[in-house]
Parts: sequence; structure tokens; C-alpha cells
Amino acid sequence: MLPDAVTAPIRGELEELEQRLVELVRSDVPLVSRAMEYVLANRGKRIRPVVLFLCSRLAGDTPRGHVTSAAAVELLHTATLIHDDVVDNSQTRRGVPTLNAIWGNRISVLLGDYMFAKALQAALETRNPLVLEVISEVSQRMSQGELRQLSSDGIDPLDPEGYYRVIRDKTASLFAASCQLGALASAASQSETDRLRALGETIGLAFQITDDVLDYVGHPGKMGKPPAQDLRERKVTLPLLKAMERSTQEERQLVNGFLRGDSEDHQLERILELVRVRGGAEAALDEARHFQRQAQEILRTFEPSPYRQALAELIDFVVEREN
Amino acid sequence: MLPDAVTAPIRGELEELEQRLVELVRSDVPLVSRAMEYVLANRGKRIRPVVLFLCSRLAGDTPRGHVTSAAAVELLHTATLIHDDVVDNSQTRRGVPTLNAIWGNRISVLLGDYMFAKALQAALETRNPLVLEVISEVSQRMSQGELRQLSSDGIDPLDPEGYYRVIRDKTASLFAASCQLGALASAASQSETDRLRALGETIGLAFQITDDVLDYVGHPGKMGKPPAQDLRERKVTLPLLKAMERSTQEERQLVNGFLRGDSEDHQLERILELVRVRGGAEAALDEARHFQRQAQEILRTFEPSPYRQALAELIDFVVEREN
Repeated sequence: MLPDAVTAPIRGELEELEQRLVELVRSDVPLVSRAMEYVLANRGKRIRPVVLFLCSRLAGDTPRGHVTSAAAVELLHTATLIHDDVVDNSQTRRGVPTLNAIWGNRISVLLGDYMFAKALQAALETRNPLVLEVISEVSQRMSQGELRQLSSDGIDPLDPEGYYRVIRDKTASLFAASCQLGALASAASQSETDRLRALGETIGLAFQITDDVLDYVGHPGKMGKPPAQDLRERKVTLPLLKAMERSTQEERQLVNGFLRGDSEDHQLERILELVRVRGGAEAALDEARHFQRQAQEILRTFEPSPYRQALAELIDFVVEREN
Repeated sequence: MLPDAVTAPIRGELEELEQRLVELVRSDVPLVSRAMEYVLANRGKRIRPVVLFLCSRLAGDTPRGHVTSAAAVELLHTATLIHDDVVDNSQTRRGVPTLNAIWGNRISVLLGDYMFAKALQAALETRNPLVLEVISEVSQRMSQGELRQLSSDGIDPLDPEGYYRVIRDKTASLFAASCQLGALASAASQSETDRLRALGETIGLAFQITDDVLDYVGHPGKMGKPPAQDLRERKVTLPLLKAMERSTQEERQLVNGFLRGDSEDHQLERILELVRVRGGAEAALDEARHFQRQAQEILRTFEPSPYRQALAELIDFVVEREN
């Protein structure tokens, strides 16, 4: 959960959001209703809607359509999680069984599609074509980012630039979109909109890097999933990249072999040890803190207000959280 | 392929469509471009775009935005096929390997998501909010129809009403939407729009029933997939329902046991024999012909024209095709 200091100024919107979400996903197919309620009840932090609501308040006093936009963002995000869990064959998320663990892959893929269609419906209900454009663009970028990561196509898996390209698309784009939708809800000026998008982008980068660090160093009980999941799936994230920068030739060969899949799984432990010894997680967290500072700087270009203060708290939380 | 008599009056639009499709799915991730080109090259009949184009001509002389609407419909349809192949674990489609057979499930689910996002982009490019509403509604109905079929939730698998509910949502809805988008492109009157939607619905029902008949009696070489696939997946379609109506108590128990999964796969052959002996496929095809006649009747409420003639040919083709 997000700290109270972050959510206090927008409690009303957050309650409205929960109602809108439940209304939107309702279906006359009992299985669909049951599955949707289950997913929404095992709620995440709702961090993207929170970012959207706070940004809308930075840009104006009377945002309109922001709850519906936030519902579109959260449904889009949840749809991608449902599909992620299928493709990663994950059995738990947030400590409870995934949809695919309960209903199998066939039904889960379709439930993700249904939720994606519902995100589109929410975007339509704002009656603002710009909202639809934002949702359309971000949904393309997110799937493309995931595909780039999975295919390692056109990127060197051991080049930090490739890593950043992936996380800008698959994660930061939705945070940037959330801020932009907040700006749209308050009819912000072009300068405000640009700054808010940049704010969302930096928050998203800090968020994803911290996620990737937690995958290496997080407490399994708090994470709700097994540790070092990314490495097991041969996904290269920043802690490993940072460790590699400080590694010997021999160590690099070990990692390369593991990533190509031509080495045994027991070498996983050796690589985890390598990341520990070379301080990969700490070095990655330093980069997350760089984006944290950048986000705080952008934030300070807005007038002081309880909303600005709440966003400042959120930015710090993003890199300091334990799950 | 569709007969020349169907496509001749709209050849120009069909060529434009192919260009628009290729432009729309372009990506700077090489794998994505490659996979999209592969899917578009192993093209189906483009029957939904053809229906859309012909309907737009029934309603007016100078349709606008119809090529972009048709691209949205075809991309949405293709996205659902990609996900269907993943959830059904199908290895071939139209006689060539499926995306999941080549690139695996993880990548294929995301490629389907990417294509769905591209369908949304195409709908946006029409700059007509009604197009987006049609696409949003139909994408919900399609996934809900599939989920109803998979879950058998709230429907009796041996009740034809449940079967019709499923195929109205999962198939007929997209044909109805195609006709409605054709009507929108020509700014048709409400009466024309209603009749065109009804026309699409009946064509869609005839199309799906014929598909389900071909699954029982089609020539495997022409179908590009193994026969009796639906029964293998315990999906009840009209040929089986029709056979059941004429079966003994004992035969019904055999089928029920098989559907519950508590009988051996060798009983599949016994059920196929039962469907043959009881004339299930012929009886189902009779119902398809009923919708064929209904579609022809609706069509005759429009003025004679080469487009009306082409649609009449298409309606006959739908129930007389061999694959």
C-alpha cells in the first residue's frame, strides 16, 4: 500500500475509482464477473491512478473525467499483468494465486483481452479523443517493450542502453501517460503537459529500476513471488548489468553462457553471488536515485500545494519501498 | 479465397487495405515486423473487410474512412486468431505454422496484444468516435463469447440456445460490426444501418455454423487443421447438438461422459460415428441455410447494384465453401 501522506489529498477520487472499476468490468458471464472481482480485490497499490490524480491537481483545481481516465489506465495495466502471468507461467502475484493458476492459460488470455477491451471502453467514456490517443499509443509501446525484451532483437542484452529502451516502453510509458491524462483532465498548458509527462517518465524509470533491484534483494515474503525471477527467465536487468561492468572476463563468460541457456541452472547461484559481490543492486539503486532526484526537480517547477507534497512523498516511496 | 464475383467491384479498396495493414503494423522491433508480415502474408479471405466494403456501397456512392475501418476490423480479427491459436495450442492455421508454433506462447500472446493495440490505432485514425464505440463493444463481445464457451458458465452445453448465444458474441458480432462500420462510412440512415447490422449478423451466424459443420465433414487438406478439432477440445457445436436431438438415451450418456472428460479419447471415434449416422452435419447445415435465406431477404430490401449482386454471391459462398 502507498503511505497515507501520498493518498490523503485524493481519497475521494480513489474511492470513486474503485466503484468505477467494479461497474466497468461487470459481465453477464458468471466466470468473468468472478474472475474480474478476484483480480480487482487483490488490488495493487493503484500507483498509476494516484499519479494521474495528483498530476491533474498540479495542473488545475477542477479536473474532469480523471476518474474514468484513471480506470482506463488501471485496467490496461491489470490486463498486461494477467497476460504477463500467463507468459511467465507465474503461480502467485501479491502473495495470492494468479488467474492462470486458478483458471488455466486459455481462460486467462481471454480474461486479459476482455479487460483490455474494458480499458478501451473507459477511455471512450471520457468522450475525449486525446485520451484514446494516449491509451492507444501507450498500449502499443508496452507490448512492444515486452517483445523487445523477450526477443533481445535489435538490442545487446548486456548493453544498458537496450535495458533503458525496454523499460521506457514497457513501464515508464504508462507512468508518462498517466501524468499526461492528468494534464488533459485539467486542460493544462503545453508547458505544464510537457513537464508532467517528463515527471511521469522519470517516476516510471525509478519505479522499474527499483522493481528490478527488489527482484534481487527483496524479501520473498514481502514480494509475493520467488526471488531472482528475472534471472531465472534470462531477463537481463540493471543489477546484473552493473555487476557486469565491474566483472572479470571470466565472470562475464559465465553470465553470457547462462543467458544463452547453454549452462546449468545451478550456475544461477554463482551469478547471484557475483551480483552481490560486485554490488550490482546498490549500483542500480544509485541510478534509480538519479531519476528520483530528477523527478523532484521537475516537481519543484510547480507551485507548492498539498498535491505537490504528496507527489514528493510518492517519488521517495518509489525508490524506498520494500515491495 | 473469395470468388471473383464477390471481390470484383471492390478490388481497389482491397488493394488499399493491404497497404494500410502493412503500414499500420510496422515496428522498429525486428521480430515484431517479421511476425506481423508473416501473419499478414498468410492471409485469410479478408471476408470481414469485403463485407464492410460492400455494405458501405449499398448505403452510398462515396464512402469515407472505410479502408481504415476495414483495417481495424481485420487487425482485431487477426489478434483474436493469434490468441486463439495460443489458447488452443494449435500448430497450423491455413496450412502453415502458427505464430506460437514458431515463436512460442510468450511472444505470441504479446504479438496478439500488439495487434489489438494496432486495431485501436486504426479505429482512431478514422477520427470518428462511433467507429471506436463499435470496435470497443465488439471486442468485449468477442472475448466474452469465447469465455462463455470455454467456461460453459450459465449455459447448458447441450442446449442450442447456449450455442447460439456463444456464436452471436464470438463471431456474428464482428460481421454485424463490419456492416455497421460500412454504414457509418456512408453516413447511412438509421433504417439502412439497422438492416445492414441485421444482414451482418445473419451472415455471421451462417458463417460460424458452416465453420462448425466443416470441422466435422471438411477435407483436412483444405481446412489446414486436423478434423473434429472442436470435439477434441470438448467444444459442443451445432452438428453434435443436432445429432443429440435424434439420439437414444444411451448415446446421450456416451456424449455427456465424453464432454465431462471422464471417458477415454477412443470414444471420440464413436461420437463421430454417431454424428454421421444421425445426420448432425446435414441438420446443422440446414440451419445455416436458414440464415442464408434470411440474409438474402434482407439484402433484397436494398436497390439492385453490382455491390448487391456481389453480396448475394458472398452469402451463398459462405454456406457452400469447402474451407
